[in-house]
Amino acid sequence: MLSDAITRYQQRVNQHLTSLLDQLATTDATLKAAMKHGVLLGGKRVRPFLVYAVGDMLGVPLHKLDNCAAAIECIHAYSLIHDDLPAMDDDALRRGQPTVHVAYDEATAILAGDGLQSLAFDILTAPSEFSAEQQLAMVRSLAQAAGYSGMCGGQALDMAATDKQISLDELTQLHRLKTGALIQCAVELAVIAAAGDELTQSKLRQYAVAIGLAFQVQDDILDVTSSTEVLGKPQGSDTKSNKSTYPRLLGLDGAKATAEQLLQDALSALSDLPYNSQLIAEFARYIIERRV
Amino acid sequence: MLSDAITRYQQRVNQHLTSLLDQLATTDATLKAAMKHGVLLGGKRVRPFLVYAVGDMLGVPLHKLDNCAAAIECIHAYSLIHDDLPAMDDDALRRGQPTVHVAYDEATAILAGDGLQSLAFDILTAPSEFSAEQQLAMVRSLAQAAGYSGMCGGQALDMAATDKQISLDELTQLHRLKTGALIQCAVELAVIAAAGDELTQSKLRQYAVAIGLAFQVQDDILDVTSSTEVLGKPQGSDTKSNKSTYPRLLGLDGAKATAEQLLQDALSALSDLPYNSQLIAEFARYIIERRV
Repeated sequence: MLSDAITRYQQRVNQHLTSLLDQLATTDATLKAAMKHGVLLGGKRVRPFLVYAVGDMLGVPLHKLDNCAAAIECIHAYSLIHDDLPAMDDDALRRGQPTVHVAYDEATAILAGDGLQSLAFDILTAPSEFSAEQQLAMVRSLAQAAGYSGMCGGQALDMAATDKQISLDELTQLHRLKTGALIQCAVELAVIAAAGDELTQSKLRQYAVAIGLAFQVQDDILDVTSSTEVLGKPQGSDTKSNKSTYPRLLGLDGAKATAEQLLQDALSALSDLPYNSQLIAEFARYIIERRV
Repeated sequence: MLSDAITRYQQRVNQHLTSLLDQLATTDATLKAAMKHGVLLGGKRVRPFLVYAVGDMLGVPLHKLDNCAAAIECIHAYSLIHDDLPAMDDDALRRGQPTVHVAYDEATAILAGDGLQSLAFDILTAPSEFSAEQQLAMVRSLAQAAGYSGMCGGQALDMAATDKQISLDELTQLHRLKTGALIQCAVELAVIAAAGDELTQSKLRQYAVAIGLAFQVQDDILDVTSSTEVLGKPQGSDTKSNKSTYPRLLGLDGAKATAEQLLQDALSALSDLPYNSQLIAEFARYIIERRV
């Protein structure tokens, strides 16, 4: 059931993203192709999944959630394109395919990222069935999650932490921003779409914080235990680039215990809500049990 | 009078930008410093000037325009930071000071640009005296002007045109997007703020299109006729990088005649409006008479 839902929502957001990009009045065709490459080269679609699954749980029709799902994936995709650049993580492979600056060139990759960020806000402000207040709240949530006090600041902390020993608190703060902010935002967009109440918002935020961090802990674990072939990116790249990771600070068993604890936090938050949260509960478990 | 207004609005937007950046909860201090360096290292503040001057002309109190002026300057500043990168125009000087990747490093410059783009949308969605509909229209206008079908697409066309002969039509289209889209947006933000009618919107758009293009024609002229010292960036850099320019396609006199014709277009649009447009008329003249 979970894997069906993951596939269904993946396909749904991919179709919507394709249609949105195709609709853009063409300026530079290469740039558009690079943006498509960056945003459509696969991936688990964790953030769109959360938008759809949480929104559906709260009673929002899926078609109303398409723009939220696409917009947040545009932000995620832009951040991957920029993070992969030679001046940042210098990664040539992403999801088993050449990264955007390898498939095109650096200038195009920078612009493709920039264009995808703008596109996210363009998409979120398109005419919709939501009230202007709801749409505005969505833009604000995404801008803050993406920016200096969120994902972008987290990436800066990550760059600064390379070749340096940082504490567990610092590592946690880094990931709360770098990965967690956008995962929280995915859930928040769904809550705004549903005009959810305070309790719903706060419990789902707790769920999102827990799985956002769990996601990163598991990523770090996979970098140690998996293979390049399975990951679609070089295995051991964290070790190679001297990044602080959970397994390094806590040992492999300690990191696994942390992931399990975060899963329990996420499930406990859901148990306080009067909704059928089975799907997103399964998803939380999937986050820390996935092999890729 | 014009120079007083330019200085006053420059100071006003600089103060507002400083205060907005200082208010951001600190994540990575270096990134914040780089964002400040990029957005506060001087400049004519053409876009904030237009927001304030057009808004004031239409009767909007200045304090209501501060966020629009700051947001559009964040987008402009981010584009300069990214355009200056080694993979793009590779410029070490901007406004007489080291560019962000020179003062910091490339990764920080990429992130500073990214963070400033997010910040623009964060600023535009802050609680305000505007209706949610107005704020949403502002975000939409800025996202479209900044993105693939606007500035970002224009920069891609510009990169693609390097070392290539392009036609006057292609050059004009390039600049309508690269510089023109954001200048049009500045005027549009002021019109949205004033809840201006159709005629006002259309005439001011005509004004903005004309001065946006005139600005670029004059930039190209200055690259030929001015000096590095006066410009604060390397003189002759267009020639060096083999860019298509108006003087190259039309000759210096032809380019000057084009600028003059665009000024007349701008003034003619203003003469159809029932407002005291003296200041923005003077500004249009300043655009094509400036020495820097």
